Amino acid sequence: MDCVFCKIRDGQIPSVKIYDDERTFAIMDISPLNEGHLLVIPKAHAATIYEIANDDLGQAAVVTKRIALAMQQSLRPDGLNILQANGAAAFQSVPHLHLHLIPRWNGDGKGFDWKLIKGDLENIRAVGEKIRAAL
Amino acid sequence: MDCVFCKIRDGQIPSVKIYDDERTFAIMDISPLNEGHLLVIPKAHAATIYEIANDDLGQAAVVTKRIALAMQQSLRPDGLNILQANGAAAFQSVPHLHLHLIPRWNGDGKGFDWKLIKGDLENIRAVGEKIRAAL
Repeated sequence: MDCVFCKIRDGQIPSVKIYDDERTFAIMDISPLNEGHLLVIPKAHAATIYEIANDDLGQAAVVTKRIALAMQQSLRPDGLNILQANGAAAFQSVPHLHLHLIPRWNGDGKGFDWKLIKGDLENIRAVGEKIRAAL
Repeated sequence: MDCVFCKIRDGQIPSVKIYDDERTFAIMDISPLNEGHLLVIPKAHAATIYEIANDDLGQAAVVTKRIALAMQQSLRPDGLNILQANGAAAFQSVPHLHLHLIPRWNGDGKGFDWKLIKGDLENIRAVGEKIRAAL
C-alpha cells in the first residue's frame, strides 16, 4: 500500500522517531505547528477511527498520555492540544490514523478556540437522539 | 468539588446525555461548533490527560470510536475532528478531561487546519531527543 506512515513504520522513509512499541510508534511532525509537535501512530494500517481495532486505539491513547507526560517534563509547555482528524473535511492529511500532540504556550496564537454560542436546545436534543439511536 | 462535569455526571446539572457506562458518559455540547458536536467524558474526575488513569483513558477512546460510528451512521458528516485540550493555553474550558467529537462538512469553515511549513530538521531532532529522554 502506498501509505507514507506505513513506509515510515517500515523504515522505508526516514523520520525522527521518539517512541516504538509492538502496536504504536511516535514521530516528530516535520511541519510543526509549535515546537515539540509530534504524532502518535498505531502501526496497523487503519485510515480513520472508524476502521481502527479497539486494542490499537486504546494503546495509542495510553501511549499519548505517556508521551504527554514526557513532553510536560522536558518542554514545560503551558498547555497541550491533542487533535485527530478523520476525512479531508476534517483536514486529515495522511489517510493512516494519527494523533497530533501539539504543545501550547500562552498567547502563541495557534488557534483551536472558537466562540461559545449557545445552540438551540430542541435541535441539540433531536440530533443527540439520532446519534443515541444509532449506538 | 465544584466541577460542572462532575455535577452533570451526578445529575445535579441537566444535560442531553446520549451514552453512559461504568467509566464513561457522553453529552451533547450545548454550544456546538457544528451540528452533532458532543463530548465524551470519563466519570472519574481528572483535570487533564496528565492525571487520568490509563483504564479510564483507554475506555474513553473506545467509547469515542463507538460514538463516532453512530455519528457517521446517523448524521453522515463528511469528516470528524476529535479534539482534547489540556490547560487554558490549549483552550480547555472545563478542567475535567473531555474529548470533543466535532462532525465536519465540506467547506464548513470551522477551522482546525494550518499551513504546513517545514520546520528546521536539526531543531526538530533536538526537541525530539529531549522528549525521548524524558520517556
